[in-house]
Amino acid sequence: MRAVDIIEKKRDKKEITNEEISFLLSNYLKEEIPDYQMAAFLMAVYFNGMTDAELLEFTKEMRDSGDVIDFEGLKRFHVDKHSTGGVGDKVTIALEPIMSALGMGSTKLSGKGLGHTGGTIDKFEAIKGFKFSNTKEEVIEIANKTGIGLMGYSDKIVPLDKKLYSLRDVTATVASIPLIASSIMSKKLAIHSDAIILDVKTGNGAFMKTLPDARELAETMLKIGKGFDRKIVAVISNMDQPLGCAVGNANEVIEAIETLKGNGPEDFTDLVYNIAALALKLKGDVNTLEEGIAKVKEVVDNRSALEKFALFIKESGGDPEIVNDYSLLPEYAGTLEVKSEEEGYVSQILAEEVGKAAMIIGAGRATKEDEIDHSVGVLVLKKVGDFVKKGDVIAKICYNESKDVEKSAKMILGAYKFSKEKVEKPKIIFEILEA
Amino acid sequence: MRAVDIIEKKRDKKEITNEEISFLLSNYLKEEIPDYQMAAFLMAVYFNGMTDAELLEFTKEMRDSGDVIDFEGLKRFHVDKHSTGGVGDKVTIALEPIMSALGMGSTKLSGKGLGHTGGTIDKFEAIKGFKFSNTKEEVIEIANKTGIGLMGYSDKIVPLDKKLYSLRDVTATVASIPLIASSIMSKKLAIHSDAIILDVKTGNGAFMKTLPDARELAETMLKIGKGFDRKIVAVISNMDQPLGCAVGNANEVIEAIETLKGNGPEDFTDLVYNIAALALKLKGDVNTLEEGIAKVKEVVDNRSALEKFALFIKESGGDPEIVNDYSLLPEYAGTLEVKSEEEGYVSQILAEEVGKAAMIIGAGRATKEDEIDHSVGVLVLKKVGDFVKKGDVIAKICYNESKDVEKSAKMILGAYKFSKEKVEKPKIIFEILEA
Repeated sequence: MRAVDIIEKKRDKKEITNEEISFLLSNYLKEEIPDYQMAAFLMAVYFNGMTDAELLEFTKEMRDSGDVIDFEGLKRFHVDKHSTGGVGDKVTIALEPIMSALGMGSTKLSGKGLGHTGGTIDKFEAIKGFKFSNTKEEVIEIANKTGIGLMGYSDKIVPLDKKLYSLRDVTATVASIPLIASSIMSKKLAIHSDAIILDVKTGNGAFMKTLPDARELAETMLKIGKGFDRKIVAVISNMDQPLGCAVGNANEVIEAIETLKGNGPEDFTDLVYNIAALALKLKGDVNTLEEGIAKVKEVVDNRSALEKFALFIKESGGDPEIVNDYSLLPEYAGTLEVKSEEEGYVSQILAEEVGKAAMIIGAGRATKEDEIDHSVGVLVLKKVGDFVKKGDVIAKICYNESKDVEKSAKMILGAYKFSKEKVEKPKIIFEILEA
Repeated sequence: MRAVDIIEKKRDKKEITNEEISFLLSNYLKEEIPDYQMAAFLMAVYFNGMTDAELLEFTKEMRDSGDVIDFEGLKRFHVDKHSTGGVGDKVTIALEPIMSALGMGSTKLSGKGLGHTGGTIDKFEAIKGFKFSNTKEEVIEIANKTGIGLMGYSDKIVPLDKKLYSLRDVTATVASIPLIASSIMSKKLAIHSDAIILDVKTGNGAFMKTLPDARELAETMLKIGKGFDRKIVAVISNMDQPLGCAVGNANEVIEAIETLKGNGPEDFTDLVYNIAALALKLKGDVNTLEEGIAKVKEVVDNRSALEKFALFIKESGGDPEIVNDYSLLPEYAGTLEVKSEEEGYVSQILAEEVGKAAMIIGAGRATKEDEIDHSVGVLVLKKVGDFVKKGDVIAKICYNESKDVEKSAKMILGAYKFSKEKVEKPKIIFEILEA
């Protein structure tokens, strides 16, 4: 078997056998197939895609390139919610305690943020003393106590993905739906869960800019999930503006806590409630989303979700008092109000720009090596559909160092688009797709 | 400027600027852009092709990656005839003396054979004492004396082509028409000539299997030639069976000499005469091909072409007596007659199979490192259109070592296809394309 023949088959859109995919990927991981052959293969995949059979085998080989964690000993119905990444996406922080209060569990690998998108690890690390579980045993112990099982990504999970991603990044082969789908799903399949919920973002702040692209990615991931006999569902959600109001780390934790108290922003609350209701439906506890949402409201209203959150923080080494006293979270030195220079209905807020505006003041990383400042961030106070007068405060920047604050404010102003005509509040969930 | 952005542009079919092509190729040559990025770029070119502007700049960068030889001091109108490679292709050996006798000159880089196709260097080296010119000065001296200027390929001519070809070979990106065209033309443009004649082979024994592919390659090369202000013309010739009868080295030299004596095989003679006549037309000596062919016949009939050949051999260190005494060429030990097992009209002779049948007995190289035996080869005695009875000798194998002769005979038998219906003799030239 020769790599060049496999590349040629893919180039000519002939189906590659399981043996060939295994040969290609396993030898690439062992560095017996060089980067240049893999680069040519990836570009051929970019143009010709993958058949269903290829997609499943490719994902399987990816998954099996590293540790597969069964989490034996978990007692609940465990849901792994995955987001394709966005600005202000603190869904995990609010969702997991709600699912726990509803009698479900969550198992999930979390990552750090890069560029305009944040990461769940960074957000939790805004809480002093909080320590991510690094071993399977720790995750199982905490998950059985609290219903929440979060683990940081390790290099031992799908090491092939890291190697392939580094190559894709410099060969213009990132934006290939089968490669994105197999990358995400190999990591989902490498750890145990009873069900997977995919939150595929679409819009100007998402990797998938258009609904058809987001739908294609969602459908490809569903196909893989189904092929591996996982319960799986996908929501396609709106990333045409930041999710909720808070963009940063400590401020996103606060917004998630407020949501658990019933005071969250409308779009964010709507998304979290729907995903939790979908989880109940996958588990078989309810028949409709409406039924599920009613149950979610109960655990928010009676504060049992908030209690689960506090318990999880305590078990993870943090101070559970943060749910009552936000001053226990890292504090910023000053704020700058961003005032509108126009009048009209907000028609668009370029989420990526807002993400970058938060990043440059320290809330995110421009490169992997950057340190982040957990206290700083942006509060998006006017959202799409709101009417704004000239001089109205549309956003607030919470900063420590004043160095880049003016620049950040300019970026936020540039991110806002206005319309003279009335603009409807956009939907947060565009579609729900089942396998 | 970043390589990944250039790859992305090509991937998305956006035109790459001259500066970007120059950046990509010059840094690749300096090994500052790695193979994996070039591999991804080449695969993107495979899918998306090149615009005319890209093609010219790419070829220019290739040409300028090494020495450009002006051959200043040449006195004649010099023609560079290029063949895309085939089986039994000894056109150069007969054509150059004819052009010389017609008052023209030839300047040409020659290469060695690989796989089923032979190389002009190997054929001339069948002549004891023959030495290829290695310096510009030697070529000019011999060319001014004999009208024939042949030089062996050096690594200093278009070094980028060698580097790129090695990568294309292992990344399934060889079969891309703009890459093939720029590879060939960069080498043509790196040495002086007053006109270029391209002999693009098509058929089962050629790299371009179909006429449309051959035409596309020819048109692409003509476009490049025109872009660089060269007089240029292309013939698309038949490689659906070996050219002429002799396949090997010494035997091809003999066949070329016989052709210069007016006794050559019909298809080979036809091709050589037409190319020589085209050269006269490009020079402006004749207005029609017919006129040109009449002049060619003259220099063959009056033996002046044969004299030029003998002179060239003498000046190159060989014994000119070989034109009268073929026993001065290396001799083989034995012959095996290949007899037909069928009756009918020969409808096809798979040229590649015949080339390989000659290669395995030592006439060619399976790998670049192989030594070749100049004496051995195959004589194709029955050609497409001939009627053959069972037991008739269709080919003869001239060998030294009997080891692979039976296998060679089987390959030749397998290469012949027969038809009960009468088969017309095929044309040797399908089309002549002008820039």
